[in-house]
Amino acid sequence: MVRSILPERSSDGGSERLEAFSDGILAIAITLLVIEIRIPSTDGTHLGSALRHLWPSYLAYGLSFTTIGFVWVAHHSMFRRVRDVDRMLLILNLGLMLCVAFLPFSTAVLARYSFTQSSGAAPAAELYSINMLVIGLAFMSLWVYLSFHLSLFVGHVDKKAVQRTILRAAPPPIVYALTAALSFVNAKACYVLWVLATLYVAVGPAARKIPVWVDASSEAVSDAN
Amino acid sequence: MVRSILPERSSDGGSERLEAFSDGILAIAITLLVIEIRIPSTDGTHLGSALRHLWPSYLAYGLSFTTIGFVWVAHHSMFRRVRDVDRMLLILNLGLMLCVAFLPFSTAVLARYSFTQSSGAAPAAELYSINMLVIGLAFMSLWVYLSFHLSLFVGHVDKKAVQRTILRAAPPPIVYALTAALSFVNAKACYVLWVLATLYVAVGPAARKIPVWVDASSEAVSDAN
Amino acid sequence: MVRSILPERSSDGGSERLEAFSDGILAIAITLLVIEIRIPSTDGTHLGSALRHLWPSYLAYGLSFTTIGFVWVAHHSMFRRVRDVDRMLLILNLGLMLCVAFLPFSTAVLARYSFTQSSGAAPAAELYSINMLVIGLAFMSLWVYLSFHLSLFVGHVDKKAVQRTILRAAPPPIVYALTAALSFVNAKACYVLWVLATLYVAVGPAARKIPVWVDASSEAVSDAN
Amino acid sequence: MVRSILPERSSDGGSERLEAFSDGILAIAITLLVIEIRIPSTDGTHLGSALRHLWPSYLAYGLSFTTIGFVWVAHHSMFRRVRDVDRMLLILNLGLMLCVAFLPFSTAVLARYSFTQSSGAAPAAELYSINMLVIGLAFMSLWVYLSFHLSLFVGHVDKKAVQRTILRAAPPPIVYALTAALSFVNAKACYVLWVLATLYVAVGPAARKIPVWVDASSEAVSDAN
Repeated sequence: MVRSILPERSSDGGSERLEAFSDGILAIAITLLVIEIRIPSTDGTHLGSALRHLWPSYLAYGLSFTTIGFVWVAHHSMFRRVRDVDRMLLILNLGLMLCVAFLPFSTAVLARYSFTQSSGAAPAAELYSINMLVIGLAFMSLWVYLSFHLSLFVGHVDKKAVQRTILRAAPPPIVYALTAALSFVNAKACYVLWVLATLYVAVGPAARKIPVWVDASSEAVSDAN
Repeated sequence: MVRSILPERSSDGGSERLEAFSDGILAIAITLLVIEIRIPSTDGTHLGSALRHLWPSYLAYGLSFTTIGFVWVAHHSMFRRVRDVDRMLLILNLGLMLCVAFLPFSTAVLARYSFTQSSGAAPAAELYSINMLVIGLAFMSLWVYLSFHLSLFVGHVDKKAVQRTILRAAPPPIVYALTAALSFVNAKACYVLWVLATLYVAVGPAARKIPVWVDASSEAVSDAN
Repeated sequence: MVRSILPERSSDGGSERLEAFSDGILAIAITLLVIEIRIPSTDGTHLGSALRHLWPSYLAYGLSFTTIGFVWVAHHSMFRRVRDVDRMLLILNLGLMLCVAFLPFSTAVLARYSFTQSSGAAPAAELYSINMLVIGLAFMSLWVYLSFHLSLFVGHVDKKAVQRTILRAAPPPIVYALTAALSFVNAKACYVLWVLATLYVAVGPAARKIPVWVDASSEAVSDAN
Repeated sequence: MVRSILPERSSDGGSERLEAFSDGILAIAITLLVIEIRIPSTDGTHLGSALRHLWPSYLAYGLSFTTIGFVWVAHHSMFRRVRDVDRMLLILNLGLMLCVAFLPFSTAVLARYSFTQSSGAAPAAELYSINMLVIGLAFMSLWVYLSFHLSLFVGHVDKKAVQRTILRAAPPPIVYALTAALSFVNAKACYVLWVLATLYVAVGPAARKIPVWVDASSEAVSDAN
C-alpha cells in the first residue's frame, strides 16, 4: 500500500479540492466571455451606432454567462452530495470543464456571425448548439456514473432518486440537440429557443425542483412524485 | 423530500460558496482590465510620447479597478451578514456579477474614445455611466431583496437598519445616472464626477459608515442616528 | 528570532497556501488555452469549413487541457503528503508554475503552424515538446528534492517509496524528449505519441498506481512490489 | 452600532478574506503574462528563427513571473502576522494590487521594444522600472502603516522588529529607482541589474532572512542583530 508509506495530511474525499478547481475554471470562463466582445474600430462619429450594432454580442454574452452560472449552481448541488471522488469521476469532471472552458470561443463565433452575415449564421448557431449540447451531456454523464456508484455519495442514497435527478437534467441537452438540427433551417429561431431554455432553467417550474444549497422554503426541495 | 434521499455533506447556508465564486469573478474582472490597454504600435522613436498619450487608459484603469475593489469590499460586508442563500438571491447576485464582468469592455471603449476622438467621447461616457449605474442598481437590488427576507440574515435584524444601509448604497448610482445624462453635454466633466465619486466611496465621510470586515475603531461602525 | 517578535496567525506548514496559489495558476492557465484559438475571419459563406479547418487548434486545446488537468491531479497527490514548505520547495514549485503557465503560448504556436504550413510544423512541435519536457522535469525536481528532505513529509516516509514515485513520474518526460528529437524528422508522428502518452497518463495501467485523493478501491493504491 | 443590528457570521479579522482576494489577483496577473507574448506571424520557413528572436519576451516573462511570485511570498509573510484589517490597510493593499495587476502591460511593452528597436528601449525600460519601483513602494507602505498600528498584528510586536523588516524590503525599490534613472543612458544594463536583483531576492543572503511560511531550519528566521 502506497498510502501506508506516503501518508496524507487529511482524509477528505477530494470533493472539496475538485470543487475549488472547478470553481476556478468556471469563474474564469464566465469572466473571459467579455474579452471576446471586440471594441469597435470606427471614427468617433459612429461609435454610438457601432455600440448598438454589437447587440448580438451582448445577447450571446448574457446567454453564455447565465449558462455557466447555472452550470456552477448545478455542479455544487451535485458535489455537495458527493463524499468520495475516484479517478473516473475526476476524468468525467475534467471533460465537463473542457467543454465549458471552450464556450468563450463558441460564444465569440456566434456573436460575430449570427446576425451580421446571414450565410455564417447557420454554422455559428450549429457550433454553439453543439457546444451547449456537449456540456449538457458531459454534465449528465457525471450523474449517470454516480447512479452506478452510489457508495460515492454522502450517506445512504436511493438509486431511483438519482435517476429522477438525471431526468431533470435532460431537457436542456434536448433543446440544444433540437437547435443543432434547426440551425441550418432558421438560425434566428435558435436564439428564441435558447433564451426560453435559459429562462426555464433559471426561474421556470423545473428550477424550483433543482435543490439550491440553501432551501429557504421547504417546497424548494419537495418532490411531487 | 429530495434532501432526505440525497443528503448533503455540510449544512452551511451556501453563503461562503457564493462568496468564493463571486470573489473569483471579481478578482478576474479586476485583473482583466489591464489587457484592454493596447500596447502602442510605433517605431521606437515615439514610444515615450505614445505611452504618455495612453493616459486616458491609465485613468480608466484606475477608476474601474477602484470601483471593482470597493464592490468587492461592499459585497463581503453584505454577505458576511447573510446566513442563507435562496435561489432569488443567487440570481440577483449572478446579475450583479454579469454587470461587473462587463466592465472591462466599457472601460476599454471609454479609454479609447473619450479623449482621442471628441465625437466618440459622448457615447463612450454614456456606455460607461450606464454600466456603472446598472452595477449600482444590481447591488441595491440585493439589499432590497434582503430587506424583505430578514430571515436570510445572521441573527435577528432590524428592518430599519437594512433600509438605512440601502440608502447609503444609493449615492453612487445617482452620480452615474447624472453622468449618463451629462455625457452628451460634456463628456469630460463626467470624468471629474467619477473621480470625486470614487474618492468619496473610498475615503469620504460615507466610507466611515460602511462597515469593513474588521472595525479597528468603534467609530467605524457607529451609526449617528 | 523574528518569529518570536512577529508572531503568526496559524502554524500550518504553508502547504495549503501553496496549493491554493498553484491551483489558481493552473485553473487560469487551463482556461486561457481557449483564447488562443482565433475566431475565423471569413465572409459568412465559408465559416463552416473555416471552423472545420481549425481542428489542429481543437486537438492542441484538448491535449494541453488534459495535460494541465493531470498536472493538477499529480500536484495535489504530492502536496497532500507534504507538511512543511521550505524556501527551496517554494522556488521549485514556482519554476513548475512558470513552465505550465507558458503552455498556452506553445499550444497556440503548435495549433497555428503544425498542420497548415508544413515547414513550420517542425519548430512548432519542437517548442511544444520542449515545453512539455520541461514541465515534466520541473515536476520531477519537486519529488527529487522531497526525497532528500523526508522531514517535509507528513508522518514517517520510506525513502524507497518516494524513489518509486519518482520513477513513475518519469515516462512522460521521456516521451516528450523523444518527440523533441523526432519533431524535425516527422512532426505529425509527434501528435500520435502525445495522444498516446496523454491517454496512458489518464487511464493506462500506470494511472491506476498514481494515488488519487480518494481511493475508492483498494487496488488503486496497492503497490505490487 | 450597526454591528449590533446587522450581526456577522464570523469574527475573523478580515485578513484571510483579503489574502484570498489578493491571491486571486496575483495568480491571474502572473498567468496573464503569457498572453502578451505574441504568436509570430511568419510563413512556416522562418518560424524557428522567429521563435528564437522572441527571447526578450521570454526573459521579460521570467523576470515578471518571478517578481510576482515573490510579491506573493512576501505578501503572505506579512499578512499571516496580521490579525485585523482596517479600511486604510485595505486601501493600501488595493493600491499594491493595482500596481501588480498593471505589470503585464509594462512587461509586454518591455518585451516588444527593449531589443528590437533601439530607440524604443529607453522608454520601455523606464516604464518597467517605474512600475516595479511603485510596486516596491506600495509594498513598503503596508509595512510602514503597520509599524504605526501595532495593534493590527497578531500578538505583541516590537516596533523595532517591524522597522527592520521595512529596511529589508527596501533594496528592490532602490535598484528599480536606479534603473529608472539608468534607462535613458543604457537600457540593456537595466536587464543585468534586474536579473541580479531578482536572483538576490530569490536565493541571496537577504532571502534567508525573509521568513517563509514554514521555517524548516531555524537559521531561516534567525536575526543576527
